[in-house]
Amino acid sequence: MSELRQDPTTLEWVIVATERARRPHEFRAGQQAPDLPIYDPDCPFCPGNERLTPPEVYSLSIESGWQVRVVPNKFAALTPSGTTRRGEHASFRHMDGYGRHEVVIETPRHDGSLALAPPGQVEAVLRACRERQRALGQDRRVKLILIFENHGRRAGTSLVHPHSQIVGTPVVPPLIRRKFEVALRHQDNTGRCVFMDVMQDEVAEGSRVVLDTPWFVAFHPFASRAPFETWIMPKEHRSSFADCGDAVLNDLAAVLQSLLARMRRGLGDPDYNLIVESAPVGDEDKDYFLWHIVIIPRLTDIAGFELGSGIYITTAAPEETAEFFRGLA
Amino acid sequence: MSELRQDPTTLEWVIVATERARRPHEFRAGQQAPDLPIYDPDCPFCPGNERLTPPEVYSLSIESGWQVRVVPNKFAALTPSGTTRRGEHASFRHMDGYGRHEVVIETPRHDGSLALAPPGQVEAVLRACRERQRALGQDRRVKLILIFENHGRRAGTSLVHPHSQIVGTPVVPPLIRRKFEVALRHQDNTGRCVFMDVMQDEVAEGSRVVLDTPWFVAFHPFASRAPFETWIMPKEHRSSFADCGDAVLNDLAAVLQSLLARMRRGLGDPDYNLIVESAPVGDEDKDYFLWHIVIIPRLTDIAGFELGSGIYITTAAPEETAEFFRGLA
Repeated sequence: MSELRQDPTTLEWVIVATERARRPHEFRAGQQAPDLPIYDPDCPFCPGNERLTPPEVYSLSIESGWQVRVVPNKFAALTPSGTTRRGEHASFRHMDGYGRHEVVIETPRHDGSLALAPPGQVEAVLRACRERQRALGQDRRVKLILIFENHGRRAGTSLVHPHSQIVGTPVVPPLIRRKFEVALRHQDNTGRCVFMDVMQDEVAEGSRVVLDTPWFVAFHPFASRAPFETWIMPKEHRSSFADCGDAVLNDLAAVLQSLLARMRRGLGDPDYNLIVESAPVGDEDKDYFLWHIVIIPRLTDIAGFELGSGIYITTAAPEETAEFFRGLA
Repeated sequence: MSELRQDPTTLEWVIVATERARRPHEFRAGQQAPDLPIYDPDCPFCPGNERLTPPEVYSLSIESGWQVRVVPNKFAALTPSGTTRRGEHASFRHMDGYGRHEVVIETPRHDGSLALAPPGQVEAVLRACRERQRALGQDRRVKLILIFENHGRRAGTSLVHPHSQIVGTPVVPPLIRRKFEVALRHQDNTGRCVFMDVMQDEVAEGSRVVLDTPWFVAFHPFASRAPFETWIMPKEHRSSFADCGDAVLNDLAAVLQSLLARMRRGLGDPDYNLIVESAPVGDEDKDYFLWHIVIIPRLTDIAGFELGSGIYITTAAPEETAEFFRGLA
């Protein structure tokens, strides 16, 4: 019999469907990704092609050249032009696509990946993201900053050269507002942070924990939406990733790389989305929200039931996938 | 410059991203789906293989045999076993996977499709869905009934023989509760049904309407989440699809087939999800909700930004896609 489980941070339900369950190792991709060249002369993110991107807004360099570059997205979903005035006629509310949309080129290597990069490279990427989140937060018209990486076709990427994206939106989307409200209500009722509660309960339970370090806990959550969904939560209570100190970023780089390397070893370089969630801009002082990272491997499809009900069906128990991932250390 | 638009029925925002826009005809699939045989001896949904499915709970027959069959899903996400008692320990809330999960086999033809079937066949499918929604609604432990079709791999289907699914869940998921609350608030504030408002405003505006029949309006909504997203709304105000009369189903069959045929002609048999949304079970008497159908072609991917923010980015203006679809009549 399957089980319904509720995510305490969103109140959404998931179904852990044992009838169609697969063992963790059965999710491994049948075919490996094709070998990529170290350099592609046509890639706008490769060294030497810097003129193919808009001028960079941030970079980190070492002796041999740039290590990480941040540039405005050439095909930006949102741009710092127009106004943030709302328009309304009949049922239709709209506004200019004001905002920010930047690309973090994670490495000069066309064939690189966070899973295989030296730890210092991962830390440089995290540092670039933090600096840009801080910079975008200075724009008072930006209400939410989301950092994410789409890895692979099923995860929605079109360019293979490793990159993350940072988007600043001129609205707080209802999805984020609701999470914030669930967290506020939890603090009203219990005096505690719901994310800290989840992290402590997962550590106490233990079966879904993959990594536990001085600064972070990584686990496959009780109410996982997809097989191998992974949450990384900081033990230091801050509501925004932008406020992390260097020691935290250093530990996070090791945690992130260890998790991505396990995904690659255990699942064969699966497509995935990685999302860094922070409180809305201006609400960083609220102590009922905890910034955190969500990694969703895209091994199964989002189908009509999920789109229509918001209930995700997962075909692997997080207790089993976490055990599998612990064994990959 | 792109534009943000708000869906009045969910209050979610979408981005219509003109920077990366494609013309409607450019979405057409490069390759056609492979030709399927009319009959596959290994397919559990083909005539003669009825023993491969659980015993049927409903069927419609004509002289030559069954026309539509409904069977419990062999790999059900939810089953009528266990209890609906909630369990709770620490942060973790859970319950048995109680519920219903049925499959509507839409035609005896392995190579069939609603887009190409005779109109009477589409009407038979709709009738079967209505009867099963009515039957499942008799189970007082079922709180929501969702009818959906996943067409094609990207839409999450594994069996190619045309089929829809009906799921009865033991909880009202937050996604549905929120839509219901948005509709209630709209009626509190205006005295009107938000769905009727949207339909009337779309008809008055006109540019996004694809079809307008005695019983239905079909349009590409102002705040489309994806290119060619289509909503079908009934002019007769009912909150549940289960309460539709025969004349309504007859017109709906023609509307649905016309829309699916345009998708096939204009886009080359794209993968899609089709979802029939009704009020929760027991709330069918609420006049602030209107049942409706949503079709989402899966031409683009759901990526990290969508998963993390709830804001969908669409790369085609619904005004242009609707014009293209009107021209395919």
